[in-house]
Amino acid sequence: MINITFPDGAVRQYQKGTTAIDIARSISEGLARKVIAAGVNGQVWDASRPINEDAAIKLYSWNDAEGKNTFWHSSAHLMAEAVEGMFPGVKFWVGPPVENGFYYDMDLGDRKISEEDLVAIEKKMNELAKKNNKYVRKEIPKADAVKYFSDKGDEYKLDLLQNLNDGEITFYTQGNFTDLCRGPHIPNTGLIKAIKLTNIAGAYWKGDEKNKQLTRLYGVTFPSQKELDEYLALLEEAKKRDHRKLGKELGIYTMDDDVGPGLIMWMPNGTVIIEELEKLAKETEQEAGYKRVVTPHIAKESMYLTSGHLPYYADSMYPPMEMEGEKYYLKSMNCPHHHKIYAAEPKSYRDLPYRVAEYGTVYRYEQSGELFGLMRVRCLHMNDAHIYCTKDQFEEEFRAVNEMYLKYFKIFGIDKYVMRLSLHSADKLGKKYVNEPQLWIETEQMVRQVLINSKIPFVEVQDEAAFYGPKIDVQIWSVIGREFTLATNQVDFSQGRSFKLQYTTPDNQTETPLIIHRAPLGTHERFIGFLLEHYAGKLPLWLAPVQVKVLPISDKFLDYAKSVADKLKKSDIRAEVDDRNEKIGKKIRDTELMRVPYMLVVGEKEMNENKVAVRRQGKGDLGVKPVDEFVGEIKVEVKDRITE
Amino acid sequence: MINITFPDGAVRQYQKGTTAIDIARSISEGLARKVIAAGVNGQVWDASRPINEDAAIKLYSWNDAEGKNTFWHSSAHLMAEAVEGMFPGVKFWVGPPVENGFYYDMDLGDRKISEEDLVAIEKKMNELAKKNNKYVRKEIPKADAVKYFSDKGDEYKLDLLQNLNDGEITFYTQGNFTDLCRGPHIPNTGLIKAIKLTNIAGAYWKGDEKNKQLTRLYGVTFPSQKELDEYLALLEEAKKRDHRKLGKELGIYTMDDDVGPGLIMWMPNGTVIIEELEKLAKETEQEAGYKRVVTPHIAKESMYLTSGHLPYYADSMYPPMEMEGEKYYLKSMNCPHHHKIYAAEPKSYRDLPYRVAEYGTVYRYEQSGELFGLMRVRCLHMNDAHIYCTKDQFEEEFRAVNEMYLKYFKIFGIDKYVMRLSLHSADKLGKKYVNEPQLWIETEQMVRQVLINSKIPFVEVQDEAAFYGPKIDVQIWSVIGREFTLATNQVDFSQGRSFKLQYTTPDNQTETPLIIHRAPLGTHERFIGFLLEHYAGKLPLWLAPVQVKVLPISDKFLDYAKSVADKLKKSDIRAEVDDRNEKIGKKIRDTELMRVPYMLVVGEKEMNENKVAVRRQGKGDLGVKPVDEFVGEIKVEVKDRITE
Repeated sequence: MINITFPDGAVRQYQKGTTAIDIARSISEGLARKVIAAGVNGQVWDASRPINEDAAIKLYSWNDAEGKNTFWHSSAHLMAEAVEGMFPGVKFWVGPPVENGFYYDMDLGDRKISEEDLVAIEKKMNELAKKNNKYVRKEIPKADAVKYFSDKGDEYKLDLLQNLNDGEITFYTQGNFTDLCRGPHIPNTGLIKAIKLTNIAGAYWKGDEKNKQLTRLYGVTFPSQKELDEYLALLEEAKKRDHRKLGKELGIYTMDDDVGPGLIMWMPNGTVIIEELEKLAKETEQEAGYKRVVTPHIAKESMYLTSGHLPYYADSMYPPMEMEGEKYYLKSMNCPHHHKIYAAEPKSYRDLPYRVAEYGTVYRYEQSGELFGLMRVRCLHMNDAHIYCTKDQFEEEFRAVNEMYLKYFKIFGIDKYVMRLSLHSADKLGKKYVNEPQLWIETEQMVRQVLINSKIPFVEVQDEAAFYGPKIDVQIWSVIGREFTLATNQVDFSQGRSFKLQYTTPDNQTETPLIIHRAPLGTHERFIGFLLEHYAGKLPLWLAPVQVKVLPISDKFLDYAKSVADKLKKSDIRAEVDDRNEKIGKKIRDTELMRVPYMLVVGEKEMNENKVAVRRQGKGDLGVKPVDEFVGEIKVEVKDRITE
Repeated sequence: MINITFPDGAVRQYQKGTTAIDIARSISEGLARKVIAAGVNGQVWDASRPINEDAAIKLYSWNDAEGKNTFWHSSAHLMAEAVEGMFPGVKFWVGPPVENGFYYDMDLGDRKISEEDLVAIEKKMNELAKKNNKYVRKEIPKADAVKYFSDKGDEYKLDLLQNLNDGEITFYTQGNFTDLCRGPHIPNTGLIKAIKLTNIAGAYWKGDEKNKQLTRLYGVTFPSQKELDEYLALLEEAKKRDHRKLGKELGIYTMDDDVGPGLIMWMPNGTVIIEELEKLAKETEQEAGYKRVVTPHIAKESMYLTSGHLPYYADSMYPPMEMEGEKYYLKSMNCPHHHKIYAAEPKSYRDLPYRVAEYGTVYRYEQSGELFGLMRVRCLHMNDAHIYCTKDQFEEEFRAVNEMYLKYFKIFGIDKYVMRLSLHSADKLGKKYVNEPQLWIETEQMVRQVLINSKIPFVEVQDEAAFYGPKIDVQIWSVIGREFTLATNQVDFSQGRSFKLQYTTPDNQTETPLIIHRAPLGTHERFIGFLLEHYAGKLPLWLAPVQVKVLPISDKFLDYAKSVADKLKKSDIRAEVDDRNEKIGKKIRDTELMRVPYMLVVGEKEMNENKVAVRRQGKGDLGVKPVDEFVGEIKVEVKDRITE
């Protein structure tokens, strides 16, 4: 008998050679049906692999990342089986799971895969899945493995074998397909109930453009048709809400080859959003006692040597400008400049907490291939701030920052979010983490306590802290369920010392302040990308670039339309008149396409009675009302930042 | 007889050999007394130099720049005469007029000049001036000149002679002092009525630190004691108002070695001013139909090759960052980015005028030695904008920009200003200026007409236009009479073509828009420097970093003081409480030092009656009034941007 320890600490005895599935079945048949992989002493295993020694076990279902990865990895093998059946002689490179599904790279010789082929492969995969073949794991001596793929004439797998040693080589077989594979896999192909092949692409072997181009087939699979349907609907919805598509249609941003990749230029409509976000941040921070500063975008190398960005962070920075024997760098973070502002005037305990905020612009180097719309860029704008405080003030300050996050989530209708408390790892002190064991434990406990006291949902993650202290990573979900990493809230007990920041205590000693780094909205780039998807481009009134469009039914009412727009503008409402010589139907359609929240249609009756016919986007006709009444209502909607 | 043409076109006949003084005397004795130099056919001459041919003449008095320069140049010779009398063997290098006065560089061997020496030299100069010696001009063959200075053993003047040719060498003598000099000079030393030697400095010969260090004596002279007294008073006042001193005292800005020279970091108090200025600009521009954009601070080399900044402007830019085989430059101007924004969406005549504004930050390289407080910096923030318009729209747009300048001048109490209309020079077309003779004449006339129609005082200056079109340079004077170059308003008929900017006309042709470049407040750096001097740090209420300080007479009234401050903050007034345990007298003095516009003193009586005792900076006690009444009054003063 062996001892199996469960995640809750319970220990039960099983026969030697039991499997995760057996263990699940010993609990319930329903559970056994759901198990597709297992954590065994921290490694992910086949759920059907015999366990021969005492072990700590976790059961993974489709709902776990480990489960999904295993499921999709097995699906890649299933696709390979189908392809090999249809295209004999095909050679395979690697076929991993990815964020949403899997791919497999293959050498099809001179053959090209068409869209029709994809459909046929999908069909074949469904047939094979229904056979409910087992994924069978087999340990193989290296010589046997080499012989197998030599006989098959597969130079790609032989290349992979070069880097593997005897004793660590396994084959997996399902049905007629055998692959060199580390595993793990799901128990059998029958679990794969719904299949969609999504894309055909070219991929250079080993990512090197000097090598041969292989064919990469992408697919995604699910344990039920319902889940596939939901996924495809989400894809369709996400496509409609694609921030790059909306960004162009709504005149939000542009890029240009002469400016450079990843360098966003904010068009007038996008700038309205940026300025409204920053206005919200300013109001919020003013109330919370922050002061604002403006700092340059460059600094000398010496600054970044002090901060520790150089040499460790150099790969993420733009290269230096050399001038007068000095190297200047574009800033990739605002903190060092803020530390200099702190240090510019002597501080006493009376000046703390000292909270400095900036509408900061930083530059970070991302590989060209990683750049993606507003989500991955090289120039980042953010509402950034640093709080310098005593240890006694820390909890209150950190709590206030977290509450600011929640306040923002409410304004933007973000209902689903999680905070990840990232902790250090004791064995990496002095390497990945500042070597201050006591301070780590102390500040981690402070942060944990803040989260518990504020009843904020959070998870703890080991070994993901910042170099200088624990942090909270914030993840949010858009209304269509896509996940975004938003921002971090970090504790820093290290940079204050590096920059020799001090304050005098009531008894005239000098102390180093704790520093909180925070940027609740993350970067404007990513956040606006998120908002475009979240709202499908239909931004709430207060954020809408044009808030009201006045549509005269004909030129006869143009002057009246202008007078209405002028009245709105005087109340700081962004209003425009559609003065084109077009039919009212077309004016309404075009205004809807631009996602303008309010349309005011004006004709004879409205003009004579000093009224407007109000249409609200998404709500339709709201009836005719006096201009002043409408102005009064809309001012409240803007001021209170109401989200429809 | 020769014909003398006056500036107004009148022609009068004079004896050959007449002088500017003679000519002035022929008009009036009073005029003759005032003439200290003359323009003869465009060159500045001695007023006493014989005129032997027909000539166009201008008479220069102390009030002309040419007059002042001549006066101070002659004063440098007078100082040299005094120094040579007191320190025999002294050798002189050069002694030019400068912005306020003159200097002379000299080699005194091992001797050092002390402050006492300066007083003695001043005294000697006064004695020599009273002798009323003539400045006598003499043309000298090169050989004779070389012999004269060889005999004197003066290697410095011999060095100067190396670069001069026979026939262009003149000596000037007054009293016992003879100098190699191109002139011109004032008629006699008696005109110099008031003398002040201001400074002793070291200066390397020819500015090269490998050469010997010479002694540089600075001085300033005037035609009357009254003018010297006024000048010294101005200096004293300017010292009190020095923006560097005030900038530090009031927590406006700081600099740091690790960031770099000329890179201003705006402290919280300075950032309030920046944000208020930008808020004013946004309001003004929104009303005027501008849209806002945000663009990155860098772009690829190709952009600046298109714009023409490279290679011509390369010396004024930071060096490039090389990355992925591309060179990226920090932007030194915002225009190219704005052109890209214009080009990002197709434009029709209906979209024009297209006005894009940005709170832009640019980086320019200035020599370290040229950097000066906020006046000469390397990172410049500005409310920048570009207007793209048709030729028909130009006059109206340009007029509107000029009127925006005047609106700002009024807000900031700038009573004295001049606009310089800078024109091209026909002989430099295709070299210094775009080779479009017709467009130059046309746009210059358009600009001139706008100025005339708007009745704005202006002067015309030849050969000072921008490469791409005529411009208006704006000069303003602070209340203490110091001059600042503020900003420019430029026409550009060239970059539109370089960037292939277009719009479709009503008849479906494509045309290139005219571009107006404008930044009415210049850079925030220089403008805030100006404001600190202009207001002696006592900023008007709407700009003041802290607008109201509430001073409780003792701790007993601290809560009441805080409630008053909270009420003010709720009305968006920047209010603070002096919660220190200090005597009320000290609180008042410290608040005055920080130039806070309003102080509210609160004690027993005020608390019981819900009132405040109001003190206005510069006005003293304004009596006790109910809190709400004060809040109401101060809100109006802020909103209307009233300057006391």
